[in-house]
Formats: sequence, structure tokens, C-alpha cells
Amino acid sequence: MPQLRIALAQVNPTVGDLDGNTALTVEWTRRAAESGAHVVVFPEMSQTGYPVEDLAFRATFAQASRKSLDELARRLDDAGCGEVLTYVGYLDQDEAGPRNAAAALFRGEVVAKQYKHHLPNYGVFDEQRYFKPGTELEVVRLHGIDIGMVICEDLWQDGGPVAALGKAGVDLVVAPNASPYERSKDEQRLPLVARRAAEAGAPLVYTNQVGGQDDLVFDGDSLVVGADGELLARAPQFVEHLLVVDLDLVSGGHAGDGDTGSDLAGLPVRRRVLSDEPVPAYPPRTEPVVSEPLSDEAEVWSALVVGLRDYVHKNGFTSVTFGFSGGIDSAVCAALAVDALGGDHVYGVSMPSKYSSAHSKDDAADLARRIGAHYRVEPVEDMVKVYVDQLALTGLAEENIQARTRGMLLMALSNLDGHLVLATGNKTELAVGYSTIYGDAVGGFAPIKDVFKTHVWQLARWRNEEAVNRGETPPIPENSITKPPSAELAPGQQDSDSLPDYALLDDILDDYVEGDRGYADLVAAGFEPETIDRVVRMVDRAEYKRRQYPPGTKITFKAFGRDRRLPITNAWRERKA
Amino acid sequence: MPQLRIALAQVNPTVGDLDGNTALTVEWTRRAAESGAHVVVFPEMSQTGYPVEDLAFRATFAQASRKSLDELARRLDDAGCGEVLTYVGYLDQDEAGPRNAAAALFRGEVVAKQYKHHLPNYGVFDEQRYFKPGTELEVVRLHGIDIGMVICEDLWQDGGPVAALGKAGVDLVVAPNASPYERSKDEQRLPLVARRAAEAGAPLVYTNQVGGQDDLVFDGDSLVVGADGELLARAPQFVEHLLVVDLDLVSGGHAGDGDTGSDLAGLPVRRRVLSDEPVPAYPPRTEPVVSEPLSDEAEVWSALVVGLRDYVHKNGFTSVTFGFSGGIDSAVCAALAVDALGGDHVYGVSMPSKYSSAHSKDDAADLARRIGAHYRVEPVEDMVKVYVDQLALTGLAEENIQARTRGMLLMALSNLDGHLVLATGNKTELAVGYSTIYGDAVGGFAPIKDVFKTHVWQLARWRNEEAVNRGETPPIPENSITKPPSAELAPGQQDSDSLPDYALLDDILDDYVEGDRGYADLVAAGFEPETIDRVVRMVDRAEYKRRQYPPGTKITFKAFGRDRRLPITNAWRERKA
Repeated sequence: MPQLRIALAQVNPTVGDLDGNTALTVEWTRRAAESGAHVVVFPEMSQTGYPVEDLAFRATFAQASRKSLDELARRLDDAGCGEVLTYVGYLDQDEAGPRNAAAALFRGEVVAKQYKHHLPNYGVFDEQRYFKPGTELEVVRLHGIDIGMVICEDLWQDGGPVAALGKAGVDLVVAPNASPYERSKDEQRLPLVARRAAEAGAPLVYTNQVGGQDDLVFDGDSLVVGADGELLARAPQFVEHLLVVDLDLVSGGHAGDGDTGSDLAGLPVRRRVLSDEPVPAYPPRTEPVVSEPLSDEAEVWSALVVGLRDYVHKNGFTSVTFGFSGGIDSAVCAALAVDALGGDHVYGVSMPSKYSSAHSKDDAADLARRIGAHYRVEPVEDMVKVYVDQLALTGLAEENIQARTRGMLLMALSNLDGHLVLATGNKTELAVGYSTIYGDAVGGFAPIKDVFKTHVWQLARWRNEEAVNRGETPPIPENSITKPPSAELAPGQQDSDSLPDYALLDDILDDYVEGDRGYADLVAAGFEPETIDRVVRMVDRAEYKRRQYPPGTKITFKAFGRDRRLPITNAWRERKA
Repeated sequence: MPQLRIALAQVNPTVGDLDGNTALTVEWTRRAAESGAHVVVFPEMSQTGYPVEDLAFRATFAQASRKSLDELARRLDDAGCGEVLTYVGYLDQDEAGPRNAAAALFRGEVVAKQYKHHLPNYGVFDEQRYFKPGTELEVVRLHGIDIGMVICEDLWQDGGPVAALGKAGVDLVVAPNASPYERSKDEQRLPLVARRAAEAGAPLVYTNQVGGQDDLVFDGDSLVVGADGELLARAPQFVEHLLVVDLDLVSGGHAGDGDTGSDLAGLPVRRRVLSDEPVPAYPPRTEPVVSEPLSDEAEVWSALVVGLRDYVHKNGFTSVTFGFSGGIDSAVCAALAVDALGGDHVYGVSMPSKYSSAHSKDDAADLARRIGAHYRVEPVEDMVKVYVDQLALTGLAEENIQARTRGMLLMALSNLDGHLVLATGNKTELAVGYSTIYGDAVGGFAPIKDVFKTHVWQLARWRNEEAVNRGETPPIPENSITKPPSAELAPGQQDSDSLPDYALLDDILDDYVEGDRGYADLVAAGFEPETIDRVVRMVDRAEYKRRQYPPGTKITFKAFGRDRRLPITNAWRERKA
């Protein structure tokens, strides 16, 4: 059977950085060529990064993207990679509008280009706003193997473009993807790709983007499956990786150059022959290339680390600062920041007020020591006192001014030293609005914004156990994990004064927010009506605060932020009846 | 010719307030009945308010909306309005998903319901995320007149549902709308509605929502045109209004009850006969009902006043507070706030620092006197000093802490007294990022967020002239209009130190932001390359600040906010070549 060596370039582009992404593609294609690959497949829109959002509407950006594609083809040829058939993604634009496009490059030229057919418009996706759908399929013959391509969402359609390729006849399908991470998404991908390979009657090569972009993180998890659905290769998650696999293929002897009709989905197929001669038989690579998926906790931790690291670095920062309160949230953020950036780039600030307990200060200092972060103590009592005295503040106004004084202090240090400020709030707080706007909500990024409080504790325990297993110092002080949570904005204050127990609260939120369940469902699930009322009311009223919160890495479908949006002015109250 | 009296109920519902909106509809239908109307037409989704955003995904909300529709039908009948054919909008849901729906109510029952066919998915609209499109048209015969309906965007389609109604045969078309205000949008509406009436071969009744909802404001401007395109009636903008008009109609003698095919657009038409007997001839109303559109400045001012008033009131606030700096932006916000809420609900705060000029303090006090607002002086020097001394702040860090200290002070007053804080920044500042996050960007609402700086001056002059014409005191101190703008965060600082002249800057922004033009276009328009570089770079880097800004009334298609979104992590730079 004819052989081909295929490389999947699971890379981390930066949105908008056409020059940088071109250089990245040249470098990884060079590595693919060195490994002897005949074909290399990059992720969806690899030239522009994904998602480009409103850059799609800038005609100058689309022109520059098209130009960068031609330049890339030439540079690949100049770099001696012209014989490697290179699949990349880019932003195109024609008279109909912007296009989410992929192209095949060979010997210095664009030999095929194709537009995405199915444009997702749910969750984080708004592609029906941005792009016009494609209507054609391009098949390229290399060494006698007919290779079809589809882009990301095209794979999720039964009887869609992949079925059309199968009907028309192809020997291999390649699919550039930018499929954002969600918890346990890898469990969906493999069966899907396997089903689609069966529909095509050919092996399927699925390359996914890796890395963080604003609130999205891409996990990679690139795959190759055989026509029979067997998993042949799988890249590790959350790292750039060149996955190289040898395939034994069946040359279908399909039609040659020119257009071929396809009666399925009415999609015309255009064929181009680059070479008919099979590759001479060669010994396939022998190393194993099927990476195991990470455990659930390791996967989430990696997502949060990579999301944070890329947000900091891609925005031109090298260091972060935030309050070390002694509590669990800031401790987990600190452990993430150290894993992402190294202790030397993390600047912890203890900002005690007169209500801060001794253990808070001790635990904060202990945290800094454990993780090797910079650490300073800046009391806020003097700032708070001026406000309280001048304005005669009491109650909530006095509580808030403490949190806000800390936010201003961190921003001042950011202005002085160039650190990015992190907001350390969790998803539970965000859901119910248990935070101070311009206070603890201050920052450019919120690492655990999409992690419920009970999950924060789980991650802390998991990370400490990992450290023990590796013979390292656990980063998070045990006391920060075990003590009752408190904002320490009033004497003896505890979170449980204002909120239901976190285990109960997270259970309700899981049903109400993640599950979109209603009042009757919540009662049926056994929650007390009074508690439901209280929680639902808090959630429905907190939209303004949620919108003002910094972005943070999304790990679930129902992350607060871009893809979930309630009206601010909203008189709806979930009802009993 | 048969007559019918039609009422257009241009009302201001609140999103999510099903009970309140039901009461509103009963009250306005009662008024329509009192005026002798046979038909009353409410806006799109009048039961739920528009837009409902992610409430569309809450099954319990859709159920409550459907239930409220049935209840409304009964309550109308109980109120003696059962004989008035009442068209309302609501959220429906069936097995396919959520629906943007309209219904006709008569004698206590829902006699027809129809789903929106064309779902806009551009600008502020995301309806393809939320709704499934309709596939049927409902025609109701009242007093021998066949009445078809379409919903909002259905009107914008040549050869769409209106053409299908025309082909099938109707004597009148009613169209509930929720069409957000944009500058000079009324110039588009009338020709469009006239064209559509010609396509239907029947008069067309266009009822639009009025009032503010988050960053949107609806101007009303409800219309009736004859089959020949003649404007027969027009409601005033930006106020609730019952527009009553008598129409002489042609009874087409179309098919009766049951389904009728339509070969145009393949849309089946379902007909229902309520009554065949024409209304006995009666003397039509004689008062003129064609309101003149407002002037451009009056229209924008009204949009900003209504947007602000409804945001404050619909969110449960009665009063606002913000910094009176003596500058033009806060002066215009103050004049808007007084027009929206009355001087007794406006709380101005002068917050001088050591860099504040004497004229700033005088102009702020003068403003308060002119508009009858509450006014207090709260120096920020003591707060600033603690930060500057403790952290050794200089330069930008020292400038920012002044702005932030003011933001915190306003939030403390808000916490004490329950005022909503307004952010007074304008669109020019927002475009180039010339503001301090957590400083002057603090607030729940930003009244002039979508108004360029040069336009702010224009509005100030216009508002003062209006006052003079009415024999009132001009609200805005002349000095605030004429003096050079300054943030007063450093000795002798002026905006012109950091920014190009505002006239030039707004010209470039108009081309780059509103016009989406590229570098080459800007050069061709005669701008200096150095200035283009400087402005474009500022705009492209300010996305994070723009996203953290409070919502504010949108008056242009390219308002910053929901409908415009660049990546935060964005390495794209507009290029010379």
C-alpha cells in the first residue's frame, strides 16, 4: 500500500501577529521536513491566530492575511520545504465577505484553498457574524494519494462536507482546527473524528491549536485515526508538539485534474494532481505516538497555567502582582502563577487592614516562601482611615473601601513596576456577586474566574499532592486550605455570614447556571425554597459585576463572559410557580 | 371602502418584567379601545421587552412568557377590550428552540401566532444565536379586512415575507418592531416601509419600541404608510405614544379559513376569519398625526436623555452622582442628568487635588447652580498623599492615583447614599484609551460614551441655545465650553500634550473606527503618517480599557461595546504598505 508520512504541527500562534505566525509556520514546517514528512497540517487560521473577532471586518487585515499566505508559500520554498505539502489556515475575503479559509502550499505556490462550510454560532463562537460559508471542496493528489480538507466545525456535521468527500472519493482527509478546551472535551473528539473517518472511508488527520487567547485556551490533543476509526496517533495536551505518523494508504484511483460533481450536499469537488507517483516503500517510524489524555485535575490545572501564561506573555508582560491574603483563592492563583511564569516573576503583596487576622499574614508569608515569590507587606490602614474619617463611612461603604484601597494599591504598583495585576476571585463569587467592584475585582486577568470554590479547594489539594509525589514542597499552605473562608472586611466576618455553605451553594449553582434549570427543578432536586430564592436572586442581580470582571481562562461551556450574557437591566425573577 | 381604526401603541416595556409589561399592554389597549380603535399593534417582543439576550435560553422564562400571553388575552377581555384585535410580541419556545414571536389576541384568545423569519445577526443583533426562524404566515380577517403580520427584520428583505403576503393577498400588514436608534435612522425607515407597502399592495403599520435598555435606546418613530407609499401617520420620537389613524381599506375578497399556499418564498399562509362584516361607515378622526422628526442635535440629545433615564430607573435607582470637574464632559453629563432625572436627583461632587485650577472649582460650582443640582466639595489631597508617600509614587502612577482616588470616593458615596455613579468619558477618550481604569472610568453608566469630543462641544452649544430660545438659564457654563481641555493630574497639563487636536483626532477616528478605513486610505485622506501611526496604535491598544468601561447609550452603528469587539491579545498593527 502507498505510504505517506504526515506531520501535525500543534502550534501556538498569536492573534494578529501575521509575521510571527509566518515565522512559526516556516520553523515547524522545517522540522516536519527534517522528520521526513510529506505533508504537514497546521491549525485553523494558523496565519492569523484564532479567534480574530472583529479583525475579520478590517479589510486591511484580510488583505495582509492573504498577502502573508503568498509570502509564506515562497518562504517555505526558499527554506527548502517546497516539497512538503503544507496545510495552513488564514483569513480570506472576497466579494461575499470575510472567509475562514485553509490553503495547501506546495513548491512556493498556493495549490488549493477552501472556505469553512459550517460556521458555529453558539457558545464562544460567533462565526455567522463574521464569515460567509464555503461551497466547494478541494482535493489535492500527492504521490497518488487524494487528500481532501475540511475545517473544524465541518467535522461536526453528519452528512456534511466529510461525507461529500467520501462520496466523491478521497484517500485521506486533513482537518485544521481551533477547538477551545472544555473539561473532558477530549472524550467527545475521538469518537467524533472516528465517525467522520468512517464517513470519508479514509484516515483523518485532526490538528488543533494549542495555547491561550484572551479567555480561551486550546488544548491541542491533535489526533490521527484510521478509516476504521482506530486511533493511530495523539499529541499531548497543552504543549506545542510535532506529531509525526506514517500512514499506509489506499490509492483510490479517483478522477484526475478538474471539477467533479458530488451529489451529496451538492458540493462541487475540485481536484488537482501534484504527483501521481507513490513514495518508494520506506521503513515506518517505530516510536509510540499515542499520548494519554491528562487526568481531570491535571487537565484543568494545565489549562489554567497555559491560559495565564499566554495572556501575560502575549500581552507583553513578564510579571504579575496581586494580593496575598492568606486565603485559598490567592494561594491557588499564586501556585498557578509560579507554574506559569516562575517564582521570580510573581510579586505577592500582603495588604493587612485592622481586621486582618494574624494567621492571614502568616499564611501569606508562608505561601510566598513556599513558592519563591517576591513578597512585600503594605498595610492599607492609613489610606482607609482618610476615607472613613473624611466621608464618615460605615457598614458596607467601610467594607468596600478596604477592598478598593487594596485594588488601587496594586494598580499603583503595576504603574510603577509594569506588573500585570491578577484578580483572584472564583466562579462562585462571580456567580453570586460576592466581590467588590474596583476592589478585589481589579486586574487585567482572573486566573480562576471559571473555577467554582469547591473546585478551587480540590485543585489546591491535588497540586499539593503532586508536589509531594514529586518530592517537592507543596506550594499551598495547609492552613489556607483548611481554614473557614473570610473576606476579613469586618470584625470576625466569615463568608458563611453572607452565603450558604459553599458545597451547597456550588451544587445549586451547578444546577442553575451550568444546567439552566428552573425553580421547580431545583425544588425537585431537594434544595430548600428559601435557599433557592436567595441564590437565584443573587445570581440574577450580579450581571453588571460579572461584566466588569477581568477576563479569565474558560474551562466550562457556561463560563461567565463573552458567551453568556444576561441583560443588566433585567426585571425577570425565577418563579416558584 | 371599508374603514378600520388602527392604534399603534409605542410603549416602553422593561426586559424580563412580564407582569409589568402585561399591565402596560392592558392599559394601552384600554386607551386604544377608548379611542375607538379596532386594532392595536404593540412592538416586537412587547411581553418580554427587547432584547432578552440569554434569557432566551432559560426554558422557565419562555414558559412564563407563553403563560403571560394567555393571561394577557384573558385580562384584555376582562378589561372590556376583547373586541380590539391586539398584536403583541413575546418569547415562544417549541421543540426547535426559542422563537421571536408575535401573536394576535381577540375575545380572550390567541387567534394567531407567527415566528420571525429573518433573524438579524450583525451589529447589536445576535438573533441567530438565540432564535429559530419561522416558516409560516398568519392572516386574520377582521371586519372583512385580511391582516397579515411580519416582525421587524422581516421588513428589511426584498422578496421576503411581505412579498409573500402580497402574493397571497392581504388588505393590511402590521409589523411589531424593536429597532434601536442610530443617528438619522429615521431617514432609512420611511423609504423602506413605503417600499414594503408597495410589495404587499396594502397599507403597512409599523410600531416600534421606545425607551432605553442597557446600551440600546429605541426612538419609536412608529409609522403608517398607504399602499402607494404615502406617509399617513407618524408618532413622535423618544416618548410613549398612542398613534391612532383611520384607514380606508380595500377588502380583497381573498380565500377564507384554512391554509393557502404561497409560491413566493415557499411560505405557507394560514388564514383565520374573525368577522366578515365591515364596520359601518363612520366619520374619521381629523387631527393631524404626522409628527416631524427631530433635528439631528435634538434627536441625539433625546436619545442620551432617555437612555440615561431608563437605565437609572429600570435598574431601581432614583439618583446619580459623579465628579463635577469644571470640564465640558461632566458639564454635558450633568445637563443630560438634569433633563433625565431633575436637578434634585443629581449629586455633583467637586474633588479638587493640588493640581486643580481655581477656574475648575468655580466652573463646577457654577454648573451646579445653573442646573439646580446638589453639590459638595470633597478634596482628595489627603487620600492621594497617603498613597504617594507610602509607595513613593511619581509620574503616571501619581497621575492615576488621583483619578482612582476620585473613583473610590464616588463609589463610597454611592454605597452610603444609594446613588448610581456615572462615568463622564466620551467616545474619543474611549477610542484612544485616554482614561484611567478604576479612575474616571468608574461608574454604572456612561451617558456620553458614544459621543465624540467635538460632538460633545456641539451638543453643549446646542443645549445652551435651546435654553436661551426657551428663556431659560443655559445649563452649561460658557467657560467649560471654551477653555482648553485638561485632566489636571499634573502641573499645567493639557489634553493636547498627549493627544492630537480634537478636531483632527475625531476626523481620523471617524475614518478609522466608523469607516473601518486602512492606513493607505488615511494617507490618501491627507492625514500625516506620524499622526496616523500614533492614533491607530492608541486605538488598537485600548481594547481592554474599552471593555472595562461601563455601558452607555449607543447612538452610532460603531459604538464601542457589545457589537464591536477586538481581541485583547492582539498583535495586529495597521500597516503602511
